[in-house]
Amino acid sequence: MVEDITKTAEEMAKEQRAVSVSEFFERNRHLLGYDNPTKALLTVVKEIVDNSLDACEEARILPKIYIEIKQKTPDIFKIVGKDNGPGIVDKQIPFTMAKLLYGSKFFKLYQSRGQQGLGIKGCVLYSQLTTGKPTTVISSTGDGKTSYYELMIDVKRNEPNIISHRIDNDGRIWHGLKVEMEIEGRYIESKTSVNEYIRQTAIANPYAEIIFDGPNGKIEYPRSANVLPPLPKEIKPHPHGIELGMFRRMLESTKSRNLIGFLVNDFSRVGRNSAEEVCKLAGIDQEKNPTQLNTEESETLFKALKKVKLMRPPTDCLSPLGEDLLLKGMQKEIKAEFFAAITRPTSVYRGNPFVVECAIAYGGELSQEGSVEIMRLSNKVPLLYQAGDCAITKAIATTDWKRYGLQQSGKSLPTGPAVIMVHFASVWVPYVSESKQALAAYPAIMKEIKLGLQELGRRLQKHVSGKRRAEMQKKRRKIFERYIPEVAKSLEELSDVKKEIIQKKLVEMIEKKAVKIEEVEENVEERSGRKVSEVREEDSE
Amino acid sequence: MVEDITKTAEEMAKEQRAVSVSEFFERNRHLLGYDNPTKALLTVVKEIVDNSLDACEEARILPKIYIEIKQKTPDIFKIVGKDNGPGIVDKQIPFTMAKLLYGSKFFKLYQSRGQQGLGIKGCVLYSQLTTGKPTTVISSTGDGKTSYYELMIDVKRNEPNIISHRIDNDGRIWHGLKVEMEIEGRYIESKTSVNEYIRQTAIANPYAEIIFDGPNGKIEYPRSANVLPPLPKEIKPHPHGIELGMFRRMLESTKSRNLIGFLVNDFSRVGRNSAEEVCKLAGIDQEKNPTQLNTEESETLFKALKKVKLMRPPTDCLSPLGEDLLLKGMQKEIKAEFFAAITRPTSVYRGNPFVVECAIAYGGELSQEGSVEIMRLSNKVPLLYQAGDCAITKAIATTDWKRYGLQQSGKSLPTGPAVIMVHFASVWVPYVSESKQALAAYPAIMKEIKLGLQELGRRLQKHVSGKRRAEMQKKRRKIFERYIPEVAKSLEELSDVKKEIIQKKLVEMIEKKAVKIEEVEENVEERSGRKVSEVREEDSE
Repeated sequence: MVEDITKTAEEMAKEQRAVSVSEFFERNRHLLGYDNPTKALLTVVKEIVDNSLDACEEARILPKIYIEIKQKTPDIFKIVGKDNGPGIVDKQIPFTMAKLLYGSKFFKLYQSRGQQGLGIKGCVLYSQLTTGKPTTVISSTGDGKTSYYELMIDVKRNEPNIISHRIDNDGRIWHGLKVEMEIEGRYIESKTSVNEYIRQTAIANPYAEIIFDGPNGKIEYPRSANVLPPLPKEIKPHPHGIELGMFRRMLESTKSRNLIGFLVNDFSRVGRNSAEEVCKLAGIDQEKNPTQLNTEESETLFKALKKVKLMRPPTDCLSPLGEDLLLKGMQKEIKAEFFAAITRPTSVYRGNPFVVECAIAYGGELSQEGSVEIMRLSNKVPLLYQAGDCAITKAIATTDWKRYGLQQSGKSLPTGPAVIMVHFASVWVPYVSESKQALAAYPAIMKEIKLGLQELGRRLQKHVSGKRRAEMQKKRRKIFERYIPEVAKSLEELSDVKKEIIQKKLVEMIEKKAVKIEEVEENVEERSGRKVSEVREEDSE
Repeated sequence: MVEDITKTAEEMAKEQRAVSVSEFFERNRHLLGYDNPTKALLTVVKEIVDNSLDACEEARILPKIYIEIKQKTPDIFKIVGKDNGPGIVDKQIPFTMAKLLYGSKFFKLYQSRGQQGLGIKGCVLYSQLTTGKPTTVISSTGDGKTSYYELMIDVKRNEPNIISHRIDNDGRIWHGLKVEMEIEGRYIESKTSVNEYIRQTAIANPYAEIIFDGPNGKIEYPRSANVLPPLPKEIKPHPHGIELGMFRRMLESTKSRNLIGFLVNDFSRVGRNSAEEVCKLAGIDQEKNPTQLNTEESETLFKALKKVKLMRPPTDCLSPLGEDLLLKGMQKEIKAEFFAAITRPTSVYRGNPFVVECAIAYGGELSQEGSVEIMRLSNKVPLLYQAGDCAITKAIATTDWKRYGLQQSGKSLPTGPAVIMVHFASVWVPYVSESKQALAAYPAIMKEIKLGLQELGRRLQKHVSGKRRAEMQKKRRKIFERYIPEVAKSLEELSDVKKEIIQKKLVEMIEKKAVKIEEVEENVEERSGRKVSEVREEDSE
């Protein structure tokens, strides 16, 4: 028996080896958003557009993005993406496009669309998996040279596999990136597909010009703003969001020669005074070399750092849309009678600053039937899948909309003629999967979204009850008006004034009166409304 | 301007570098199931238990698993897991425990709980991240030697970091694995926490003995079966589930010297005849060396392979629970009046065979209020999180339960006194994220689950309507019985027979009659019921 088991353990050992991260995602391609052909097509377009927008914004260029989708066979589509961004330097192209977990955004804390070093590489991987073809990449950085590459991924090693490469030194001056690939896909126009993604992207990025040349024709989204939003600043990690394991790695790899320098330079919001306080609290010499701390000391220092009071992270690392842009974007695309938008103050989860923005459109031509329409955005990217798993959907479903004039049964989504839009902007977005389609429901995030929704709700409620009041007023007036001719006639007989004049005066009187009543009611409501908004700051679950 | 852009591209290039897969998951720890302390504690216990069960089953050992959770500080818990499995050979321990994406299961197509080479490594990573401490691993393979390791993960390189190591050559004969770690966690007993996971694991694995020594005391789950289920067989990939990219890699790395051998040996369900047919259809010499095919040839061969008719994948790679075990498991834990279970025939998605099993418990002491309780299992592992995103939940919500006697509004979960359990068994489970808590809703999977649920529904409906009928019968009988004394008295006067005798005969008559009526009704229903089951095979969306 015992010998037998030993053999088993030896046999098991022989079967073990390492998997490359490419191999892992090839097998688990649904994790990157490639579970079905429709979603795959969306994912590829999304990764190309997100990359282009990020590159343009970082280089301070007003983005102009061209996306083409052409059907080659019933299942195979050719996708071309072209931008006017800064381009990629020649020797970096293979790694940037064809090595998973390679990039710059992973190491920087600032608001961008990409953050993982997976997106565009996932497209190349999916393309070669389903069509066996390389991806063509053409780029110039404005130096008169143009790079041409055909790239695949060596899946076993997770390294670029360069099929062809040449540099044209033709002196043509341009900058930007062009990507061409073929993939297995399916093109459907729906609420969760490419056309909707492009439409919502245009709403959220009004300074970008987007041309979408799809299977059903060309749609151009011209720029509606000519100024780029300020570039979000990169920040250092905030001490309150750091974990012990990561803290120790920072100690090991810091360039600072003493603890004071380490604390001040490697973290956000730690000044000299706070740094001294931390060292004193930990009982460790502030001049000590950070790399020389033993296990116990690093833990003591870590705990002291968590105890010292610090300012919240700075907010200039964030670039929200702003209430004005939110309203404009919605008004341009949605035919409703009432709009409201709100940008919440900056908040923090796990040390990462974030801002929540909410907007609502109500009534007008919106459908009375079914659930309200929800638009989810994170760092200006529309989220179309995994709605049920997203903090935004959960926050909407657990807000009590009945008090704000929408129908709602239990903790399901409200119904009625409304569109609710929520934008989440952060230096690090906690997506529930690598396909980046839903936000993880951290309590601090849920709370902020719900507070934003409640504020919108109160404004909506005012509008809805205003509408009801106006209807009531109309009814009341109609009753008066019905008697006016008769009263006027009687008064004419009594007073000798012509009944037409009396009638006119009576109508004027009623109108004046109605306005006064409305004003009084409005004031009363506003006061009680404000009270409510101060008191009700519900916690998320 | 142009120069400026060039500089930008150069600057961007400087910031780029590779991220190790450990670093990636450290940052995105919520992807592995570590988004909050409660879930983290569950995830660690789950990974340890799943690993132990897999190891024992593979080595044909009846599992005995001990799990201990002790609270050390308000936030820090010590977790000990110990099993009687085959153990791990000394030199493999560091890689098996402390290198992400290392293992054997990724390369094998057979039904097991682990499949990614992430699970237990994720625990070590989370432990060192939150407490800074190494994980202790003690193991023996039954050869009289015991290995002791203290392990951490070198995150930057994704390699094991051995803190200490020794081998005790004391001749003590045992085999198994003991793991000890400290993590940041929170212990709550709820429907989505450790206690429920262990309870459901015991139901689904009745041949395992599990002892759970938690903060609120010790719970022992003794074995209720003494025989291991047959070991699921490893299978080769089925041609209909393979993609071009993977097919090409198989061509490159095959040990077969000709195409015939490659097709027959490296795939499941390809015989010599089919292989010859594929080569003929592709117009490629069947004796050609697989590694010598050019790009075009490999694509032609791939297409031909997809066209040839083949048998479905074999099913002995699967180890479902079986209807009997499903019923026993539920009856042991749930106090209900009605139970039903069904194991569906084997089906296929993306070339992977799978089996769906469904069971239901109804009435009795189950709560009348709220939604039915749902138990989700995949490869005998309970799934507790991400219910909204899971194919099982979606299939339950989109089945029409009103016709089967449960309440349901629209496409939400049915309400009523019922527990619905669904088990998904496959050689490769398509989880929606690495935390393995929800199944991706592939159409073929949705369809199978819904067919299983409909079958259960029909059985439930029969029970529910039988109950209603019995109540009706009772009412009818009561009406008769009310008149019996009077009738008996009158008959006594007319017939000279004693009224007590007449009364007794009348009661007997009613009882006989009632039984007959029931039998007739039952037959009618059974026939119509069977008809329904043959006709209704709804498609999933």
